[in-house]
Amino acid sequence: MAKIFHTLVSIEDALKIVKGKVPLKPLGEEYVDLFEAWGRILSRDMLSGIDSPPFDRSEVDGYAVLAADTFGAEEDNPVALTLIGSSEVGTMPDKGIVSGECMRIATGAPIPKGADSVVMIEYTKEVDKKVYVFRPVVPGENVSQAGSDYVIGDIFLRQGTLLTGREVASLAALGYSKAPVFKKPKVALFSSGNELVAPGKPLDPGKIYDANGPAIYSMIKECGCEPHFMGILPDTFEKIYHSLEMALNSHDIVITSGSTSAGLGDLMYKVLDSLGSPGVVVHGLKVKPGKPTIIAVVNGKLVFGLPGFPVSASMIFTVLVKPILMKMAGFDRVEFRKVNAIVPYKLSTGRGRRTLIPVSLIESGGKYIAYPTPGSSGTVSTLNYSEGFIDVPENVEFVEENEAVEVKLFSDKISIPDLAFIGSHCPAIDLLLSLFKDRCTAKIINIGSIGGLYAIKRREADICGTHLLDENRMEYNLPFMERFSLKDIAVLVKGYKRRQGIITLKDNPKNIFSVEDILKEGVQIVNRNKGSGTRTYFDYILKQIAERRNEDFSSLVKRIRGYTYEAKTHSAVALAVLQGRADVGIGLEYYARKYDLNFIPLVDEEYDFVILKDRLEKSHVKEFIKVLSSEEFKTKLSESFQGYYADSNTGKIIGS
Amino acid sequence: MAKIFHTLVSIEDALKIVKGKVPLKPLGEEYVDLFEAWGRILSRDMLSGIDSPPFDRSEVDGYAVLAADTFGAEEDNPVALTLIGSSEVGTMPDKGIVSGECMRIATGAPIPKGADSVVMIEYTKEVDKKVYVFRPVVPGENVSQAGSDYVIGDIFLRQGTLLTGREVASLAALGYSKAPVFKKPKVALFSSGNELVAPGKPLDPGKIYDANGPAIYSMIKECGCEPHFMGILPDTFEKIYHSLEMALNSHDIVITSGSTSAGLGDLMYKVLDSLGSPGVVVHGLKVKPGKPTIIAVVNGKLVFGLPGFPVSASMIFTVLVKPILMKMAGFDRVEFRKVNAIVPYKLSTGRGRRTLIPVSLIESGGKYIAYPTPGSSGTVSTLNYSEGFIDVPENVEFVEENEAVEVKLFSDKISIPDLAFIGSHCPAIDLLLSLFKDRCTAKIINIGSIGGLYAIKRREADICGTHLLDENRMEYNLPFMERFSLKDIAVLVKGYKRRQGIITLKDNPKNIFSVEDILKEGVQIVNRNKGSGTRTYFDYILKQIAERRNEDFSSLVKRIRGYTYEAKTHSAVALAVLQGRADVGIGLEYYARKYDLNFIPLVDEEYDFVILKDRLEKSHVKEFIKVLSSEEFKTKLSESFQGYYADSNTGKIIGS
Repeated sequence: MAKIFHTLVSIEDALKIVKGKVPLKPLGEEYVDLFEAWGRILSRDMLSGIDSPPFDRSEVDGYAVLAADTFGAEEDNPVALTLIGSSEVGTMPDKGIVSGECMRIATGAPIPKGADSVVMIEYTKEVDKKVYVFRPVVPGENVSQAGSDYVIGDIFLRQGTLLTGREVASLAALGYSKAPVFKKPKVALFSSGNELVAPGKPLDPGKIYDANGPAIYSMIKECGCEPHFMGILPDTFEKIYHSLEMALNSHDIVITSGSTSAGLGDLMYKVLDSLGSPGVVVHGLKVKPGKPTIIAVVNGKLVFGLPGFPVSASMIFTVLVKPILMKMAGFDRVEFRKVNAIVPYKLSTGRGRRTLIPVSLIESGGKYIAYPTPGSSGTVSTLNYSEGFIDVPENVEFVEENEAVEVKLFSDKISIPDLAFIGSHCPAIDLLLSLFKDRCTAKIINIGSIGGLYAIKRREADICGTHLLDENRMEYNLPFMERFSLKDIAVLVKGYKRRQGIITLKDNPKNIFSVEDILKEGVQIVNRNKGSGTRTYFDYILKQIAERRNEDFSSLVKRIRGYTYEAKTHSAVALAVLQGRADVGIGLEYYARKYDLNFIPLVDEEYDFVILKDRLEKSHVKEFIKVLSSEEFKTKLSESFQGYYADSNTGKIIGS
Repeated sequence: MAKIFHTLVSIEDALKIVKGKVPLKPLGEEYVDLFEAWGRILSRDMLSGIDSPPFDRSEVDGYAVLAADTFGAEEDNPVALTLIGSSEVGTMPDKGIVSGECMRIATGAPIPKGADSVVMIEYTKEVDKKVYVFRPVVPGENVSQAGSDYVIGDIFLRQGTLLTGREVASLAALGYSKAPVFKKPKVALFSSGNELVAPGKPLDPGKIYDANGPAIYSMIKECGCEPHFMGILPDTFEKIYHSLEMALNSHDIVITSGSTSAGLGDLMYKVLDSLGSPGVVVHGLKVKPGKPTIIAVVNGKLVFGLPGFPVSASMIFTVLVKPILMKMAGFDRVEFRKVNAIVPYKLSTGRGRRTLIPVSLIESGGKYIAYPTPGSSGTVSTLNYSEGFIDVPENVEFVEENEAVEVKLFSDKISIPDLAFIGSHCPAIDLLLSLFKDRCTAKIINIGSIGGLYAIKRREADICGTHLLDENRMEYNLPFMERFSLKDIAVLVKGYKRRQGIITLKDNPKNIFSVEDILKEGVQIVNRNKGSGTRTYFDYILKQIAERRNEDFSSLVKRIRGYTYEAKTHSAVALAVLQGRADVGIGLEYYARKYDLNFIPLVDEEYDFVILKDRLEKSHVKEFIKVLSSEEFKTKLSESFQGYYADSNTGKIIGS
């Protein structure tokens, strides 16, 4: 279990090392049908195969004439020409005209010999075999000359061009049915780790689902490469060795994720180093997270060992692997979709290591705020809530509050949310959003009531859900508008009542009927995180008990087993009780019922919404309030959320 | 050939009419494997299938302990714990710990019963069966609690979400192997018109290649739909009727392009109106171009008849069809990639009709300039040079110089060029760009030397190629820096000499040996466009002849047949002579040799480059000058470009 990382190198140096071993260029070309060419990259300059237009053709509907014949024509003094036939699209006219004659002609039809211009139909009148022309034309008018657009041999598209509808149109128009494009590099992908199970299969104890397989597969595709997922590898040398050896035979690049941490005794390092020459060229990146990344070169082919945590794997893929794959796919420049943002508070970094900080983007008054995503890099929500990440150089120790940063997005297609809901966790918000008329990409960050009020103060949240009790005024939420100096910038919108109480197992084996019973010997609790409304309420009750007992609050809580054991959501509290990790917790009746637990009511608290005043006109905020006030929401709330009560004030502004 | 358009309607009204007839919503859902889910759209809210993490797990490598056991541990006063085993990733430990004990644990491994925290390996020392802990931990430290991330039933992704790597990771991590997504609408696509030939087939006289088929196919794909190209239709009622009828049976939507102009006697209208009820619902849009657009509804399915010109078809597809297809594909919002730009000069519009103006985007000092693309909407280059278009409302008559506009791009993936070359046409520029180290997406617009100098003055061009002779000073280019007041803002960089002369057929049937011979009876010329350096030179010679003959210049040129017949490029001049459309033209020796024509030298002109001073530091401009000065360029120029001469000054700044 010793750490066997070799010298850590920077990403820049890693890229240099890679370039020195493997040429980062396309692996050849192939011809694809134009109908399949979208998104591919031209592998050579394209020369026009024809003259375009291929013949002199009319740009309008009208009559092909000799311009000289029309000189002097006027509205009340038309020139009369003899109509000798017509030129239709798709065939060359079988005769030409001479002075005094004209020929009917359609847009796109060939100009007959002898004619040098076309009079638009609007300025003519056809009577029997005569055409009266009311306006003169000059030679060349309304005529596209053969070759005036492109001639045979003109370069019209250049090597390296990404093909979209526009380029495909030009290729087709100039005679090509197929396009020469760079071959897509074939990338073999493995996930590795004894803990991994393929999604959809049963999850045995101690196992987790493999997220990296499908995720990195998608990211490889987005780089213009052809991914092949080859399965989940166990942590055994033999199996990994043989699978990678086989994959190297039929692919241009191999990528694995997982099994790279020092905890595994350098397993992946040993495999990659023994597959072929020169073996591992980079072992350990000077990046946080991402240290356990490995790069090997095996007989001229690149093998990457990415970290196992999805958010680390995605970030290292983006900064290290993506540029390499895109170069090999033929993109001459690697263009990340980036967003300019500011950071809401001072961030400390990995000191001496380049630091990648996953962030959640929130729109605020036309600017984006890059909110560091709460949660460890091992959690699913960290990736799920992050649109991208900040990339802080190794010589920077802090990113200052309000500093402008560039956020690298995880995908070109990622959507940036239009509503930011930050504050107390409440499952009814999901019901609320599901009733929106148009879909709303809401970002919901559960960091507790107090964190939410700070987010309003910093203008990061559009809406904050809060349920904080002022112990002196015995009033919910409104006093905190003043205490947080929010009165000028925000309003309080009435939400609903939620019943909170004591949650124990159904048969209540420790006989807990009040908060005081929690103090009994041998009772293990699960607490909520500081700053949450529920924690604030729990501490308020405990303070009252301490007062009654004439005991110091801090000495009282020291006697509570699990007081410092903090869950972040109501659901986790209920689950801790259900799974026997705690005997008791304080939480919503809704979750107690959901998990069929015992519930002793303590309080019907007021859960309200603080909304920034200048966001009240934002369409999704308007829709939020509209749905909150609606009968549909109130009905569904009482039907599906036990312990929840809306009333006629729900959705109304009750103060600021 | 009468015009039979019905009442023209606006695009907004057309969309309203369509919505009234066909619900613009997805056509159902299907399940796709996660590995194929990238780019698809979720058809329902996703609830977590598991608690995540599924068990309490370690976030670090270290030792699972009871936090209370570590209280008081210090660097020089470690706590000693008994090591009783280890917890590995992927399996539940077979025993728990009690006070005084610890267990080795790897990142991601389950926390053994009894333990409540993990000490990082960095703060421990293992000796025999004892572990010395040098730093205390608090309960819960380095532990991810079961369900703390998501619990069963939590909504983690919402209906309508576009799936990228990030979402696919969450789906996998929370137990899904397949994702419910909206079905892709099946779109049948036809091109129509007797003039059309499939690319790759021989091009008979009077025919052109079908560009719309592959182009609209690509655009349909980009809307998240499944296109099927069903072929090219001739302009006959029966054939179109039966093909469309068949396509409607097996597709959700049918799109045709071409055969919609009034010139065809309303053929497409008649077919679409007779296919089924209610038939044509929109015939004619109040949009320029795009008037001949048809929308029909046939037994609940939409049929679009788009204009035939590729640039018109692409613009109408973008503003009319794309929003409809995207809604039916499940995109709740239709997001165009747009770019803010300013227009370089006053533009007049379609007066009373919404006007779509294709534009070429040029970057200038961090801003984009939307340069109306030269050429008619029937030419290939118009689309090839346009990144998108300006959409001017019907009540706007003019877009003023420097007005800010929004440019709708033809594709999300379209690349905006990094070098703007505007000015005189020169085939050697292609050679120059092909020698760039990194690919440069250059925009080359050939509008002649004078137009190029104006483009420099308006700061639209990075580089202008010019070959203008000052008749008084008998000097090229430099005098024009002063005349155009460019001395302060631009420099002149030496290019090369190009030989121009008289081009005739190989056997010179009209016996033309000098410019004077062009004045002979029965000689037809092809001229160059006004503002081109070649035209300026030709007129200079003609003026000298007029002077010698004591004749008025304007009466002299009136005698020249074809004087007003203007070609825009050297290649088109050579081609006009080759194809017998003219007996003689003035042009580059290079093209005369290329087409094996007769060439009589007139002048070795100086072709130089005017470059904006503040663009000299732009990387692609630097590369341009570097390549221009290189021996490689000079060698290749003399090898492949007859009549071209570079010298030691080539690439040097020769004045401003």
